[in-house]
Amino acid sequence: MAERLIVVGGDGAGMAAASQARRRRDRDDLTIVAFERGHFTSYSACGIPYWISGVVPERDQLIARDPATFQDQFDIQVRLRHEVTGIDLERREVVARDLAGGGEVREGFDTLVYAAGAMPIKPAWAHIRAGGVFGMQTLDDGAALRDWLDGEPKPRRAVVIGGGYIGVEMAEALIQRGLSVNLVERADQPMSTVDGDMAELVAEAMRGIGIQIRTGLSVTGLEERDGRVSAVVTAEGPIPADVVVLGLGVRPNTRLAEEAGLPLGPTGGIRTDRRMRVPGLPGVWAAGDCVETLHRVSGMPVHLPLGTHANKQGRVAGINIGGGYATFPGVIGTAVTKVCDLEVGRTGLRERDAAAAGFEFVSVIAESTNRAGYYPGARPMTVKLIAERPSGRLLGAQIVGWSEAAKRIDTLAVALWNGMTVDEMTALDLGYAPPYAPVWDPVLIAARKAVDALAATGG
Amino acid sequence: MAERLIVVGGDGAGMAAASQARRRRDRDDLTIVAFERGHFTSYSACGIPYWISGVVPERDQLIARDPATFQDQFDIQVRLRHEVTGIDLERREVVARDLAGGGEVREGFDTLVYAAGAMPIKPAWAHIRAGGVFGMQTLDDGAALRDWLDGEPKPRRAVVIGGGYIGVEMAEALIQRGLSVNLVERADQPMSTVDGDMAELVAEAMRGIGIQIRTGLSVTGLEERDGRVSAVVTAEGPIPADVVVLGLGVRPNTRLAEEAGLPLGPTGGIRTDRRMRVPGLPGVWAAGDCVETLHRVSGMPVHLPLGTHANKQGRVAGINIGGGYATFPGVIGTAVTKVCDLEVGRTGLRERDAAAAGFEFVSVIAESTNRAGYYPGARPMTVKLIAERPSGRLLGAQIVGWSEAAKRIDTLAVALWNGMTVDEMTALDLGYAPPYAPVWDPVLIAARKAVDALAATGG
Repeated sequence: MAERLIVVGGDGAGMAAASQARRRRDRDDLTIVAFERGHFTSYSACGIPYWISGVVPERDQLIARDPATFQDQFDIQVRLRHEVTGIDLERREVVARDLAGGGEVREGFDTLVYAAGAMPIKPAWAHIRAGGVFGMQTLDDGAALRDWLDGEPKPRRAVVIGGGYIGVEMAEALIQRGLSVNLVERADQPMSTVDGDMAELVAEAMRGIGIQIRTGLSVTGLEERDGRVSAVVTAEGPIPADVVVLGLGVRPNTRLAEEAGLPLGPTGGIRTDRRMRVPGLPGVWAAGDCVETLHRVSGMPVHLPLGTHANKQGRVAGINIGGGYATFPGVIGTAVTKVCDLEVGRTGLRERDAAAAGFEFVSVIAESTNRAGYYPGARPMTVKLIAERPSGRLLGAQIVGWSEAAKRIDTLAVALWNGMTVDEMTALDLGYAPPYAPVWDPVLIAARKAVDALAATGG
Repeated sequence: MAERLIVVGGDGAGMAAASQARRRRDRDDLTIVAFERGHFTSYSACGIPYWISGVVPERDQLIARDPATFQDQFDIQVRLRHEVTGIDLERREVVARDLAGGGEVREGFDTLVYAAGAMPIKPAWAHIRAGGVFGMQTLDDGAALRDWLDGEPKPRRAVVIGGGYIGVEMAEALIQRGLSVNLVERADQPMSTVDGDMAELVAEAMRGIGIQIRTGLSVTGLEERDGRVSAVVTAEGPIPADVVVLGLGVRPNTRLAEEAGLPLGPTGGIRTDRRMRVPGLPGVWAAGDCVETLHRVSGMPVHLPLGTHANKQGRVAGINIGGGYATFPGVIGTAVTKVCDLEVGRTGLRERDAAAAGFEFVSVIAESTNRAGYYPGARPMTVKLIAERPSGRLLGAQIVGWSEAAKRIDTLAVALWNGMTVDEMTALDLGYAPPYAPVWDPVLIAARKAVDALAATGG
C-alpha cells in the first residue's frame, strides 16, 4: 500500500513540497492529500496589492496552479475550504472541518508537511471586527477588500495602519483606486525595512502622490457606525475612515502545530533543521511562513514570511520526502518593492540590526545613476552599504532609485551571501555599457566609499 | 624636489592612475604630466555608437573630465595632441612629438604609467586607407565617422565588418541614421561573445530592424573610387559601400612599450603583477587596454579591453604609486550590451572557452520572464548556465531578454566570482516582488535546471 503524505496548507510552501515529492515518487508509492482552508491554491499573495489597484486586472492571474491542475498533472488531491482542526502525531491522523459542506473528515498519514502560513496581526482594539477592516494576507482577504471597495456606500477615505511593505503597497493601491489615504505608523519612519535615511526618500515619493503619512502615532482603537468602521482612533484624535487596512505584519500560524507538540523557536515560528524536518518528530516537516529560519549574517533565527523563501523551503522538504537530498541554508533578508515608481531594495542587516547583533560597523551612502550620466533616461540611484569594522565584511545594503534600481540588490546579496569585504567588492567584474551603468557601477562606487570610510576610522 | 610621474595615454586608465596618485601625494611631492595623442581625455569610448546614432546628441557629453579640470582640480598637466615616440628607461625620459604645433619635447620621469590603450585591427587589405573606412576606437575615430556621414555625397550604404560588440552596436547606430547596413562576419554567428544558441536570438532582433547579416563570409579587400571606398570585396563578390566600419577587434597598443623593453605576455598585452607593476622594471606601471590580465575562471591571461577594467586598473596603479596598497585580481569576462532593445549579458566562459580550458561541463538554457508572468510588461528572458561536472561549479552564464535583463548578469557574475556551485545557487536569497521577478527568479530557475542536468549526467 502507498504511503500517505498529508499537507496542511495549500499555498506556495505546501504545494511546492507536494509537487517535489511527487516528482520523485509516483502514486503507487505515495498518496498526497493537501488541506487548504481558503478558496485557492498556490497563488501570489505578493501580487494582491496590484490586483487591488487594478494594475493586474483579474484575480485568477494571481493563481499559479489550481486544484484541478494538481489533481490532473501531479495526482495530488487538494481539499479546498477544509480547515485542519487537529493533528494527532501518535495516531498519525489529522482532523479537518469542511467549511463549505459541513462535517468533519479524518485522514491518516505517514508523513506530514505543516505549511499553515502566517496570520495578519490583529490587535485587541475595539471594533476590530467591524465591516471594512481588513488584514491582507490571503487572496480571500484581497477579494473581501475588493468587494468592499466596489460596494455601496462607496468608501472614499482609507486608513492604512502600519508602514511596512504591505502597508506601503496597499496605500499606493488605494490612491490608485481614487481614495484618500492616511498611512499611520507608530515608528518614526514608514518603510522600516530600510534605515531612516533611505526611508525618507521613499516617504517623499509617497507624499508626492498624495499619501498622508503620519509617523510616531499610535492607534488605540477603531470606531464603528451601523456595523461599518467609521474612524481610526489615535493619540492625536480620530481619523475618519470608510475602510481600514491592517499592515501590522503577520505572525506564524502555529496554533495547531503547538497543540500537536511541534517545537517553536524564539521568534514564535516552528523550528526545523536544514532539511526542513521538525527536530525530534520523525516524518514531520514544516515549511513556509509558519517556520523560523536562520539569518546568515546575524546568526540568529528570524521569521521572514516571503513567498520566495516559502517556495524554496517547500521544494527542499519535498525533495527530501521524495528521497533526495536538499537543504535550506537560511536567508539574508533580501527584499525589493516598488512605491510610486520608486524602487527599493535591501539585503542583510540594517544599522539597527547590525548594532543589535553586536557588530561594529561603518555605513556609507553613495549617490550615482542607473546609466551613464550622458545616456538618455539616466536617473539617480542611492546605494547604502553597511560594513563591519575593521574587517570590511559587508553586513547589509540598501538601494533606492527611480529605474532599474531594485534588482541590483541581488548583486549585493550574492556578495553578502559569500562573505565578501567591501575592498574585495571594488574589484568585482560587473557588466558595463552606457545604457546600463556608469563606467563605475553604483555598487562599485559605494564599495569604494565604504573602503574610504573604513580607512578613515582606522579600519 | 618633487618626484615626476609621466603618464603615456590620457584616457580612462592613465587619468585614473594620475588622479589616484594625486589624491595621496600633493604637488610638492609629485609632479604629474600626461601625454595624449588625441584631442580628448577621459571619455567614454563605449558611448561612441550612441553618439553616432544620435541617442546621445553632443560629443562633449561623452567626456568625463577635460584637461582644464585635471589641471585646476588635480594639478595634473595634460599635453593633448602629443604623441609619445620614445621611452628611454635608462635615462628615465620620454620623447613626444607635438602633433599640433610641431617639434619635440622631452620629459624626465621617476615613475612611468604606460596606458596607451588599444588599436583597431586593420587588415592589410587593398584600399584600407580609402576615405570612408573607419576603425572605431577613439573619440577622434567617432568624430571622423560623423563628419563623413554628414558630408557630401551623403553615404547611404554601410558595411560593418565584424560582428562583435562594436560591430553590432555600430550596425544599429547606422540603421538609426537611416543607412542600409550589411554586417559581414567571418564566423558562423554574429555576437560571438555569446554561444551560438544565444546569439541567434540577437541575430533575429538585428534582422528585425533591417540589418542584413552575412555570416561565414570572409572579406578579402576593399574597392575605391576617387579616393572614397566603394565596395567591400568578399568571397561571394563585392558589396557596395559608401562607408565601412571595421569591428574586427583591437590589439594592445604596445609598440613603444616593446621598444622600451616592457615584457609582453602570450596575448600580446603588457604583463603586470597584481598591483599593476611591470615586473622587473622598478617604477614602471601599466594599465588599461594595453595590458593583459588574468581570467579568474580559465586561469589564463586574456586581453579584454573594456573601460571598466581600464578604470579599475588605473585606480589600482594610482593608489600604489600614491603609497597605498591595492590589487587588481583579474576578470571573469562580464559584459552587457543592448541590440535593438534586446539586452544581452554574459560572464565567465562560453562553451568553447570551457572546452578549450579543459573543463567538462553541462549547459542548460532556461526560459523565464523578467517579472511575475501576470504583471504588466512581463517579457521573456533566456538564461544559459554552463557548470563544471561533476563539481557543479558555475563556469559561465549568458542572458538575453527584452527588458531589465542585461544587468542581471551581475548576480551570476558575483556567484561565479565566488566559485559557487549551481546547487548552492538554488538557495540564493534574491529579491522577489511581482514587478521585478517571478517567485522563482530566472537565475534560480536556471540554477535548478543545471542541477537537474548534472544529476542526469551522473554529476
